[in-house]
Amino acid sequence: MTTREPIRFLFDFISPYAYIAWKQVHAVAERHGCRVEPVPILFAALLNAHGHKGPAEIPPKRIYTFKHVVRLASRLGVPLAPPPGHPFNPLLALRVSSLPMADDTRRDLIDRLFDATWAGGPGVEDEQVVARVAGEAGLDGAGAITQARSDEGKARLREQTDAALAAGAFGVPTMLVGSELFWGNDSFPDVELHLRGEDPVTPAVLARWADRPATARRSPRS
Amino acid sequence: MTTREPIRFLFDFISPYAYIAWKQVHAVAERHGCRVEPVPILFAALLNAHGHKGPAEIPPKRIYTFKHVVRLASRLGVPLAPPPGHPFNPLLALRVSSLPMADDTRRDLIDRLFDATWAGGPGVEDEQVVARVAGEAGLDGAGAITQARSDEGKARLREQTDAALAAGAFGVPTMLVGSELFWGNDSFPDVELHLRGEDPVTPAVLARWADRPATARRSPRS
Repeated sequence: MTTREPIRFLFDFISPYAYIAWKQVHAVAERHGCRVEPVPILFAALLNAHGHKGPAEIPPKRIYTFKHVVRLASRLGVPLAPPPGHPFNPLLALRVSSLPMADDTRRDLIDRLFDATWAGGPGVEDEQVVARVAGEAGLDGAGAITQARSDEGKARLREQTDAALAAGAFGVPTMLVGSELFWGNDSFPDVELHLRGEDPVTPAVLARWADRPATARRSPRS
Repeated sequence: MTTREPIRFLFDFISPYAYIAWKQVHAVAERHGCRVEPVPILFAALLNAHGHKGPAEIPPKRIYTFKHVVRLASRLGVPLAPPPGHPFNPLLALRVSSLPMADDTRRDLIDRLFDATWAGGPGVEDEQVVARVAGEAGLDGAGAITQARSDEGKARLREQTDAALAAGAFGVPTMLVGSELFWGNDSFPDVELHLRGEDPVTPAVLARWADRPATARRSPRS
């Protein structure tokens, strides 16, 4: 195994796609001898910044998303159950996951918080639950909540989210390999090609695409 | 081969994902002994109806989409080149593709119009090009343009788009098997499971998901 750039895994607990990708990304990283560097970010802030809607905010897409994640998880053998409510407020869980801690502890904590959300657990909106899960991951639960709620704890998540926006993120999960961005579970084959040095997207190919002019803009239906 | 419900394939030439899916859907249908019923619709009208943005309307997502379709087409062995401009106005090509004609002619016509857009051709905004392509598919090119521009020709595309919205469509490509909706290239495995009667989404599963309350709404960043 060679030492490679890490896969930075940008996620929000709100997203079942991020949960499913979290259950895949470690095996992908191991196959390529690289580390996973988890980066909690606030998906809602990405939507706000881009003036965009999340899949749960368009009624028929919300239903389709439920069905799609059930099908995807079933195909991949990932346990999946609906959380107590959705959308929910993921801020505390994201802030706790962003605190300074050892890599192994962070992976275990995120794993437990994802499972609490998407694998039949009690969700992660309740402070007591987050404290208990943090304790199970080896942290001081009450202390972690206090730290997460401090100005510094809040600023850390904001900074991570701003850095994600600066890197071009528009959704979760986003995987960054160096400055190359990959989005969603269907991008794993692309991540692997990229890590193998076989990405068909070269600067020359990209230049051909990026310089095409718009010859029409969307307007009300004609 | 048994006679099965058709796969209704809802598409807009504007979408490279629809182009790539068009190149896959016939093989999927053949494997399951069903027909493909192509349904041209106006993607922009779906976005308008849902107050949503297309992938090309969010700058970093536009770039990612270019890269993603290059990677996807490369993996699938589908020829892909950028059209002369994008976004472009697909209305004439959609209306011509919606005219009454034999099934084989329609498949050939759509294939040629997709190739004119996404396989290195001249695009489909120019009336002369659309007339020529219609002629190559066996239609009276000039006559097809006239019919497409008639009130009836315009109404047909509008009705197809309204029906797509009523069926819950929010993007392209959408595949409908009966009333079950599938979206995007990554849904082909799900379409196939559904056609085999092995869809993990049952009414009971869906009911568990659909009745979860929202416990938070998106608000400006905190």
